[in-house]
Amino acid sequence: MSTQPTPQFDAVDIIRAKRDKRTLTTDEINWVIQAYTDGVVADYQMAALNMAILLNGMTRAEISTWTHAMIESGERMDFSALRFPTSDKHSTGGVGDKITLPLAPLVAVFDVAVPQLSGRGLGHTGGTLDKLESIRGWRAALTNEEMMRQLDTVGAVICQAGSGLAPADRKLYALRDVTGTVEAIPLIASSIMSKKIAEGTGSLVLDVKVGSGAFMKDEANARELARTMVDLGKDAGVNTVALLTNMNTPLGLTVGNALEVRESIEVLAGGGPSDVVDLTVALAVEMLAGAGKHIGEDEVRAALSDGRAMDKWRAMIAAQDGDNDAPLPVAQEQQQILAPETGVLASLDAYDIGVASWRLGAGRARKDDPVQAGAGIELHVKPGDHVTQGQPVMTLHTDTPERFPRALELAQSSFEVSAQAPAHAQQLILDRIS
Amino acid sequence: MSTQPTPQFDAVDIIRAKRDKRTLTTDEINWVIQAYTDGVVADYQMAALNMAILLNGMTRAEISTWTHAMIESGERMDFSALRFPTSDKHSTGGVGDKITLPLAPLVAVFDVAVPQLSGRGLGHTGGTLDKLESIRGWRAALTNEEMMRQLDTVGAVICQAGSGLAPADRKLYALRDVTGTVEAIPLIASSIMSKKIAEGTGSLVLDVKVGSGAFMKDEANARELARTMVDLGKDAGVNTVALLTNMNTPLGLTVGNALEVRESIEVLAGGGPSDVVDLTVALAVEMLAGAGKHIGEDEVRAALSDGRAMDKWRAMIAAQDGDNDAPLPVAQEQQQILAPETGVLASLDAYDIGVASWRLGAGRARKDDPVQAGAGIELHVKPGDHVTQGQPVMTLHTDTPERFPRALELAQSSFEVSAQAPAHAQQLILDRIS
Repeated sequence: MSTQPTPQFDAVDIIRAKRDKRTLTTDEINWVIQAYTDGVVADYQMAALNMAILLNGMTRAEISTWTHAMIESGERMDFSALRFPTSDKHSTGGVGDKITLPLAPLVAVFDVAVPQLSGRGLGHTGGTLDKLESIRGWRAALTNEEMMRQLDTVGAVICQAGSGLAPADRKLYALRDVTGTVEAIPLIASSIMSKKIAEGTGSLVLDVKVGSGAFMKDEANARELARTMVDLGKDAGVNTVALLTNMNTPLGLTVGNALEVRESIEVLAGGGPSDVVDLTVALAVEMLAGAGKHIGEDEVRAALSDGRAMDKWRAMIAAQDGDNDAPLPVAQEQQQILAPETGVLASLDAYDIGVASWRLGAGRARKDDPVQAGAGIELHVKPGDHVTQGQPVMTLHTDTPERFPRALELAQSSFEVSAQAPAHAQQLILDRIS
Repeated sequence: MSTQPTPQFDAVDIIRAKRDKRTLTTDEINWVIQAYTDGVVADYQMAALNMAILLNGMTRAEISTWTHAMIESGERMDFSALRFPTSDKHSTGGVGDKITLPLAPLVAVFDVAVPQLSGRGLGHTGGTLDKLESIRGWRAALTNEEMMRQLDTVGAVICQAGSGLAPADRKLYALRDVTGTVEAIPLIASSIMSKKIAEGTGSLVLDVKVGSGAFMKDEANARELARTMVDLGKDAGVNTVALLTNMNTPLGLTVGNALEVRESIEVLAGGGPSDVVDLTVALAVEMLAGAGKHIGEDEVRAALSDGRAMDKWRAMIAAQDGDNDAPLPVAQEQQQILAPETGVLASLDAYDIGVASWRLGAGRARKDDPVQAGAGIELHVKPGDHVTQGQPVMTLHTDTPERFPRALELAQSSFEVSAQAPAHAQQLILDRIS
């Protein structure tokens, strides 16, 4: 951004400053991010600084500077030549969160382009690219030119983020993962927003999950993260809004790659579980509004029931060499869990279901592990539903049945059946932060 | 210590535990210290853990376990075969702190053996070995056998610590130095005490400095460090006591290697500045008492004035091939600073004098830098003394006169002359912690 030479600093002075709760200057932050990217600041120094940031925090101005320094470490994309305005969505990750799949084509129906640069799953939450790769032939890696062409012709693209976007963030994230410093709100916010701002979207809707299956377990932290990210987006001239949404129980009735694609296609066909449909529509309304198109909820829902969103989906999949007519993979083995008694399903824990699905082979423990397309969990009831003793509560799917015991153990303890319905049904959308 | 296999842990879990203010278990601490020494836990993970310890603290039990894990990482010495009890002293470091030099032979006069394993200086405080190396021929490196023989024949030895003592501490200290995590009381205390306990001394007196020229600038922190170290010593069966002493102004009238040896010899000859003599005697009384010899202050002073301490000194230096009769090195260039007005020297800042002396060549910036034997600062007045305009306040010494300007700048602003004496003279010994 600046053409002036960056002043020289000492990494130890910067670490000590944050350790002693001093606000870092713009020059200090720019220097430390660049020097870390260049290998001048060592991993062990950045690890100590990250821990000091986690424990002592950062001001809004520091977080903004940190984010911009990460953006400046790499290339930026530019969608200003497109004939449509652009709008993007980012979810902080949850169990059964397949919303991006129906959402991107749904928004594109209304002539707002959706450039979704996505990632792969790690741990108990799935990755959008892993899900789409269960469609025969579908390609995650596009060149910038292919991406621009598809945005122009179809209006929606979901693909892998190139390595040129915010390289400092990639290096920093790998370090945070092995040093217990993932859970720092300034670092989470700047990691997400540096990529989204560098991507060049005109507007952005954040789906900040809160609950057992989310990264943020409590609402105060989730709210702070949402606030921080919305501020960062606005400071960078990106029209940004956040929805705070419930992640105590899985979204929809499926968890796992091909299982979630199947459910997404049901939504695009005008059906699907109501929570998935409701959240897809709510996020679509926000994305369209962010791009300057104020379209009512009913009109958006109509695009799901009349086949326009499905047409966009098929065009989007086909443009990336996906075979819309190929059958989705199905796991070789299934096992059911039955209701131990008659009553009401009082709770169904998102985290337990996420980990059980991961253990079945739907997720990966290390970055380069393969995932099973067919593995995962199908839910037959959701909290609040009545169950009869012996009725199937869920079905576990895997290609490797030796994985059943550990997954079953967790899945069996993931739910509770009680004599009466819980006093209050859980709300799906908890708040809107703008 | 234990012959059971150490359970396996994950470094990230241990970092997260301390980050979240959980008390680490004995097994966790033993594992992480051993795994770090073995290279299984990476520097960046230990750096994050150190920062979490610095900011979130450790319980007395955790610090004790951490210290013992460092001791167990290496060899331990054993002085039980000596015909004398052993007593040692450790100073947390100050400007002009040459006390070890007269103290070790003084204590040995009374048939208490002093095994002083010392270090070199880094930054603004000098190192005992650097000082002694200004004596022609003197050898810092002794084998364990040479050390034992000298303790038996002379009763005092000041030498370099072998690399086998607490190797985990050496690796950890180097990391803390470059990651802004030096200033953590649990880590400072365990670093000092692991070496002193492994060294095998029967009793130990700690000189914990507080003030501008000390590592600990404020008394509350110094007191906490002293308390922590005394507890660690006692827990390990070492008779330990600490004196909290003033380091706002340099000790004695000299700062720099050969200059401090000269002053130490003056003290051993029955003269020398009163603060150096008083602190030497007070520490000697404590060291003797720790070894079970309750000898009064007057009797200890007598050993300085009647030549017995000097005889021990000469024997100690000669045993390590030092030439007691060779002239001490003198710097090639001198420059005086004169009093700008008549009045009372109100203050003389230890830190400024320490850094100025370091800039003159008496100290090192990096571990392997050479030091100038003759460089340093000679003080002609101390706080509370009357000065007349134009009278020399101090003399700066160096072999490299290009170093004068930066040193002069600091030395000139290190003192204040005022119309009247300060209301309260500063106490030398602030407290005794046992």
